[in-house]
Amino acid sequence: MTQPPRPETFRTEIEAAAARIAPHVRRTPVMRMAGDDLGLPVPLVLKLELLQVTGSFKPRGAFNRMLSAPVPAAGVATASGGNHGAAVAYAARRLGHRAEVFCPVATPAAKTARIEGYGAVLHRVGAAYDEARVASEARAAETGAMIVHAYDQAEVLAGQGTVGLELEQDAPEATHVLVATGGGGLIGGIAAWYAGRGAQVVSVEPEGCPTLATALREGRPVPCPVGGVAADSLGARQVGALMFAVAKDHVAQAVLVPDEAIRDAQRRLWGALRLVAEAGGATALAALTSGAWTPPAGARVAVVVCGSNTDPANVTG
Amino acid sequence: MTQPPRPETFRTEIEAAAARIAPHVRRTPVMRMAGDDLGLPVPLVLKLELLQVTGSFKPRGAFNRMLSAPVPAAGVATASGGNHGAAVAYAARRLGHRAEVFCPVATPAAKTARIEGYGAVLHRVGAAYDEARVASEARAAETGAMIVHAYDQAEVLAGQGTVGLELEQDAPEATHVLVATGGGGLIGGIAAWYAGRGAQVVSVEPEGCPTLATALREGRPVPCPVGGVAADSLGARQVGALMFAVAKDHVAQAVLVPDEAIRDAQRRLWGALRLVAEAGGATALAALTSGAWTPPAGARVAVVVCGSNTDPANVTG
Repeated sequence: MTQPPRPETFRTEIEAAAARIAPHVRRTPVMRMAGDDLGLPVPLVLKLELLQVTGSFKPRGAFNRMLSAPVPAAGVATASGGNHGAAVAYAARRLGHRAEVFCPVATPAAKTARIEGYGAVLHRVGAAYDEARVASEARAAETGAMIVHAYDQAEVLAGQGTVGLELEQDAPEATHVLVATGGGGLIGGIAAWYAGRGAQVVSVEPEGCPTLATALREGRPVPCPVGGVAADSLGARQVGALMFAVAKDHVAQAVLVPDEAIRDAQRRLWGALRLVAEAGGATALAALTSGAWTPPAGARVAVVVCGSNTDPANVTG
Repeated sequence: MTQPPRPETFRTEIEAAAARIAPHVRRTPVMRMAGDDLGLPVPLVLKLELLQVTGSFKPRGAFNRMLSAPVPAAGVATASGGNHGAAVAYAARRLGHRAEVFCPVATPAAKTARIEGYGAVLHRVGAAYDEARVASEARAAETGAMIVHAYDQAEVLAGQGTVGLELEQDAPEATHVLVATGGGGLIGGIAAWYAGRGAQVVSVEPEGCPTLATALREGRPVPCPVGGVAADSLGARQVGALMFAVAKDHVAQAVLVPDEAIRDAQRRLWGALRLVAEAGGATALAALTSGAWTPPAGARVAVVVCGSNTDPANVTG
């Protein structure tokens, strides 16, 4: 599937993905909490997706991709800032496939340790995700491996969309859902789930990697700078074409947050919940705690906390 | 209330406690997961009570006690290995009372920082909980403060029992519930909730503080050694009289685990879930992961993960 998802089939594809991946991933819990311990005047709902297998939402898309078509004997190849690579490695091991993962040189140990721990072959290439992506595609062309793209494949989008399905079932009161965006697979899937039905989906992006904010302004995915504290999870060069086809109509707003707001949100999650969230995992919350986004009166806000792969020293300081 | 709880009113008292404390505590989520990532052959349900305000289950009982009778101008006094003190400090601040908390000298910084951070007066007294308890009672006799006991008060038991209420509602399939025991407030409350109705409640205790195992063997609460890695949360000298009146009939079994099994369970919770559980918080899981307790065929096991107040360095190593 390389066609943009069609709105009339979004939900069907996501429901099919949910059934396909259910034996392999966790249904992560939601938790309602008063805002005061986080310094917020409003209560909120957290979708604790950082408790997912491999420590991020990524296995949802990785499993859905690998379970949607035959995987060749050469296995799978992918490029990743780290979390998607860990998810592909985990899924490949569980399903009995070979995996090669290409990561930028600066990928943190918390992520490379998972990739190698799950038995994948790790290649460190380039300064940013996009260089690793080029290398992974060259390698797949050589070996015949299946590419499991980090965000720009329909099966990957549908897999990530299962976060939206679960969130709507478990927190039907949510009027706004805050989601961090890098390449946009997660928010693309969630926006596809909610498309035209209730909750508004709000993108939160680091000022250092404003991928969807820029694309919405320009009317198409365009290359962006890649930097800041969350670059290892949100540092795609631009949003995917497939997610943009959804986001241009179904993402309500894109909000930018500075790095210090992200670090502060990480510290608040530790202080109030003893959760270790990586920078990308705390970015959605940072829109609220920094005041970059203010919920309208009467809003019931859900925040997706989507990744935990970091050194705890980054959150306790 | 200093009478033992009566079985015919257990549920009513716990339901009343749940209504009383609801504005102040979190309904913590349950999560179902495959066992394999934890090295277990069976799936399990985790009650993620370590996400509670203050980082442990203790505010449930503390709020219920303080909301059940008028608090004098002198405020509240308590003794604690740390978690209960943090809960009393938090509840006192929120309800507008003064609080004095007596802790053993060796109470970890992760706990004393919370107690002082919430504005209570902290006294460090003695080598173990029991010496701090004597000091807290002397101080309350001087000042007229209300004692909020760490476990041996009916309101405290009923408050902790709300963990059982929530767990039964959210995981009705559970046939066995594993709970760590120190003074026994948590398991006493949970056993009171489940008494005679379905799930069996299993006590898990460190070999270094075998409080309920010893009491069940002797037929009454008796003093025990206090030691090991979980002593700062489970290091009561003996179980409470009130909990024992429940436990002797409604706790199915008491299982002992060595310190290394507890450390190993902490590391597994970090590796598989990126959760930072303190030693006492991982003790119930240790019964499963060490093989000290084997579920009978067909069992659906729920594990209460009840505290997170520790330095992350203790779980990542």
